[in-house]
Amino acid sequence: MAKSPLARPFPDLPDIPGVRIATARAGYKAWARDDLLLLEFAPGTKVAGLTTRSKCPSPEVETCRRHLPYGEARALVVNAGNSNAFTGAAGRAASAAQVEEVARLLCCWPRAVFPASTGVIGVPLPRDKAVSGVRAAVAALGASGWLAATQAIGTTDTFPKAAFREAMLGNVRARLVGFVKGSGMIAPDLAASGATMLAFVVTDAAVSPGFLQEALAAANAGSFACITVDGDTSTSDTLLAFATGRAGNVPLTGIDSPGADAFAFALADLCRELALLVVRDGEGARKLIEVRVIGAVSDESARRVALSIANSPLVKTAIAGGDANWGRVVMAVGKAGEPAERDLLSIRFGGVLVARHGAVVEGYDEGPVAAHLAGEEVEVEADLGLGAGRASVWTCDLTEGYIRINADYRS
Amino acid sequence: MAKSPLARPFPDLPDIPGVRIATARAGYKAWARDDLLLLEFAPGTKVAGLTTRSKCPSPEVETCRRHLPYGEARALVVNAGNSNAFTGAAGRAASAAQVEEVARLLCCWPRAVFPASTGVIGVPLPRDKAVSGVRAAVAALGASGWLAATQAIGTTDTFPKAAFREAMLGNVRARLVGFVKGSGMIAPDLAASGATMLAFVVTDAAVSPGFLQEALAAANAGSFACITVDGDTSTSDTLLAFATGRAGNVPLTGIDSPGADAFAFALADLCRELALLVVRDGEGARKLIEVRVIGAVSDESARRVALSIANSPLVKTAIAGGDANWGRVVMAVGKAGEPAERDLLSIRFGGVLVARHGAVVEGYDEGPVAAHLAGEEVEVEADLGLGAGRASVWTCDLTEGYIRINADYRS
Repeated sequence: MAKSPLARPFPDLPDIPGVRIATARAGYKAWARDDLLLLEFAPGTKVAGLTTRSKCPSPEVETCRRHLPYGEARALVVNAGNSNAFTGAAGRAASAAQVEEVARLLCCWPRAVFPASTGVIGVPLPRDKAVSGVRAAVAALGASGWLAATQAIGTTDTFPKAAFREAMLGNVRARLVGFVKGSGMIAPDLAASGATMLAFVVTDAAVSPGFLQEALAAANAGSFACITVDGDTSTSDTLLAFATGRAGNVPLTGIDSPGADAFAFALADLCRELALLVVRDGEGARKLIEVRVIGAVSDESARRVALSIANSPLVKTAIAGGDANWGRVVMAVGKAGEPAERDLLSIRFGGVLVARHGAVVEGYDEGPVAAHLAGEEVEVEADLGLGAGRASVWTCDLTEGYIRINADYRS
Repeated sequence: MAKSPLARPFPDLPDIPGVRIATARAGYKAWARDDLLLLEFAPGTKVAGLTTRSKCPSPEVETCRRHLPYGEARALVVNAGNSNAFTGAAGRAASAAQVEEVARLLCCWPRAVFPASTGVIGVPLPRDKAVSGVRAAVAALGASGWLAATQAIGTTDTFPKAAFREAMLGNVRARLVGFVKGSGMIAPDLAASGATMLAFVVTDAAVSPGFLQEALAAANAGSFACITVDGDTSTSDTLLAFATGRAGNVPLTGIDSPGADAFAFALADLCRELALLVVRDGEGARKLIEVRVIGAVSDESARRVALSIANSPLVKTAIAGGDANWGRVVMAVGKAGEPAERDLLSIRFGGVLVARHGAVVEGYDEGPVAAHLAGEEVEVEADLGLGAGRASVWTCDLTEGYIRINADYRS
């Protein structure tokens, strides 16, 4: 798969004290690459997380949900190439065997092991490969870095996606590394707020599980919950954050703890960057689109209208064609099922007012809009003229590349 | 545009007593074809109709809504190539001028004239062309037939779509002719229950406006409300039925009138055929897909799950590729937001059980399923295992053709 034209270079990422990385070749598909990731966390590492709201979650998702309330993590294990979703008892048993093997080898409780899998739905995870892969990874712990970790969890991803932030917690500098996979089946609908999107954040800050959960939910609401590639929500979406505590700060237990706001801001900012990287790797994407809705009756109403625009195949194909077809934006506002008034509605592309109060502006010149649409980053704004509600959603254009990728994904 | 591989031949259609047909070349686009249709109805013709629920309706839609309560029709005028939607005062004035010109030339009230327009959004209907087109059409009344009428209202349609039914009303034989345009922006959301879909039914039966409305709403619920091409709902969707009364039956005023059930059945059956023809002309379509959901908690819940499957780009691209990727059906059930239980869910393709109670069936043989998917008509069934709710939705596959058509529709 050719690298997305919207790809970004992989950043320099520091080690996070208290974390050891290994990858291994479990061989879930016939490919010549590592497809299993193991992160080992030092004792005392806290965890928080959000999982898909799909009614058909994978066993890995169910395991994470069971383990999260304990708040402690010693390992993350990720399988790429097989999502293990909708695989019944065989899939559950294979995932459980893998988790138990990690716990046995690292001498921890199984409830401190967090599994995730991504890939084809409906084929049980091959138990032997899953277990022997874990053994190989444990033997190699500490030998890999973040780039290898990120590459090992990719499926249709065309470039590895990661980001880094720092936060001053009092006079202690904490580090946050995040990495993510996902390019299709992306409309994260994580329980609190879709793709198989797997996103992981690792920090050396000391943070209580409760506050980590609170900060992560807020970060998700402004990042992964605001992106869509195709409106399809995976059975396996998972966002997990691990805090080793090795930075040595006074543990953050609530927003009033010294440095808590800096940490929450850094986490939100990191998640925003990761979310936009997922859109930049949207299947077939050639343009990154920000859909901004203002003037809605509420922020939530604005978000729904923005998603109606961002998920409209007709809007996305028009932008793919560089066509300033603002009428399709009107159509998508009209069908959203949210309060809207045709004769109050205004549309902007790249800041240029195209239509105002229900009609095209007088003397409309398509030139500047066409120039904006020729670029890699496109901004669409709909002003509903009703209230103060606002929201932004990020998506990508819909191209023949998306069709090609998905018409023969399994082959 | 090449004809859809799913096209059907144009049927033989009878004249409907009390109806005269004309088409004209208004020249809304730079094309060498008639793009204006005028139907003249005999005095006493009754009318019923449903229009889009979009919050951004065209002035033509608003006019139909205002005129429908009077229940009487003398003319239908349809413009193709310009939807006149979102065109403010200029568009409203142009449409009003056209309606008034029809009324003046046919010596009737403007409220007996029903306009519809389809095409690009945001460009005011050119008033001069709209008026002179009407004059040319009036001069030619009676010179055209149903084929010319159907062709005149098409835009991205690749074949003309019409159907015919008869109903015995006591000992009187009534005829129903229906014709429709639409191939993209199709997810009709007509007020009662989407594309620019324009569908018109003309009958010589004598029917009261009230019963015609009742029968039409029921027919819509089982036809146009159950199709989707791209999940995008037009600003201009319109379904109108005209009854000239020339068959001479005792007027149908309610479901207890003699022959009323036969009429309602024929109307519903006709609308179902028209709706499926629209899907067969779905932009880029190569396969007609029936998505059937059974075992839901209610019929409405079943319909929502069916639409979630039918609108999923990942399901539609898989079928385009002939890929029996039933995992994507699981994904679409899971994201629908309706009651569902992974471990009760079963999936069939073409009647072949693929997955049962949350996992692939033992000894699953993809051969028969792949053979089914290689055909032109594909059946997908999801059994939720919860209750007696059921619904069917029809859609088409999502191909590179859809992208090509829509990335440069306006050029």
